Amino acid sequence: RPKNILNEVLFFPSEITCTEAIFTPSLHSCLCTLPHGVETSFSRLLCHILSTSSSLDLCVFAFSNMDLCRAVLALHNRGVVVRILTDKDYAAITGSQIGVLRKAGICVRCGVKTVYMHHKFVVIDGRLLINGSLNWTVTAVQSNMENVLITEVPKLVQPFIKEFHRLWEQSDPS
Amino acid sequence: RPKNILNEVLFFPSEITCTEAIFTPSLHSCLCTLPHGVETSFSRLLCHILSTSSSLDLCVFAFSNMDLCRAVLALHNRGVVVRILTDKDYAAITGSQIGVLRKAGICVRCGVKTVYMHHKFVVIDGRLLINGSLNWTVTAVQSNMENVLITEVPKLVQPFIKEFHRLWEQSDPS
Ligand SMILES: [Zn+2]
Ligand SMILES: [Zn+2]
Repeated sequence: RPKNILNEVLFFPSEITCTEAIFTPSLHSCLCTLPHGVETSFSRLLCHILSTSSSLDLCVFAFSNMDLCRAVLALHNRGVVVRILTDKDYAAITGSQIGVLRKAGICVRCGVKTVYMHHKFVVIDGRLLINGSLNWTVTAVQSNMENVLITEVPKLVQPFIKEFHRLWEQSDPS
Repeated sequence: RPKNILNEVLFFPSEITCTEAIFTPSLHSCLCTLPHGVETSFSRLLCHILSTSSSLDLCVFAFSNMDLCRAVLALHNRGVVVRILTDKDYAAITGSQIGVLRKAGICVRCGVKTVYMHHKFVVIDGRLLINGSLNWTVTAVQSNMENVLITEVPKLVQPFIKEFHRLWEQSDPS
């Protein structure tokens, strides 16, 4: 195995900084009052997600973070196949971005209502796994003590691909 | 790097089976009505925890599972250095095993009250990381869709050792 397999760990809460330059690399200057040009756990996470080239399989209990929503919409708009598995109850909560993502044409399925879908993982391009304690909310990113583990080790990534497929097939497409 | 570095993923909910033989390997037969002799995600998790030889650093939001409590007490009784970082609010909830563990003489510290301690990771013998979405509760193990990732990859384990140390130092020992 080549030594350049990616393995990285990010801890939260993350410093709150401007994310504009991540979404618009051609941006010359931003006038907002947040710190600029600082690498944070959240900016690393966003960059990994925006690096997706073909497919993003997301299995997350709570999704209300608007930067992460913007990233997923950007992927969808450039032709990445996005699939989202989420919790039925949380999807209906105020602030959830699931409705926005669905309206944009992204495939969203909800877990069986009787079981709490507590995962927080993403598989990028069938190759990179992002997994940990972090829900895709603002509180998780900016306030909580959380972790995100990022790996390309096939023995860790493959089981999540298989589990995503299994959960996707048994989930409610409506 | 040698190829025999452990990498394993477990998914939950786990089948409910008898755990007696895991705690008492010399046990010849058990008369309880649960299934016996079946390997499950939970039995794998218990075996990994019981394999600890020198130190167990646990950072978990919720700890109410009595089998996991029994495993940690067994480690403590055989001289393993156990340290537990947990959430202050959850530790006070009915069913939490934190009081039991503390009374047994195990070092427990609580996260700063203002911040939600949402981690669910363990470092075993400074070598093996167990991390994922799974809280140490009965519901998480038996009902929820959850994951646990187990790895010895140093680039993944080392940051968690460092973060545990940092959180331990800043936590409330009382
Ligand atoms: Zn800005
Ligand atoms: Zn039995």
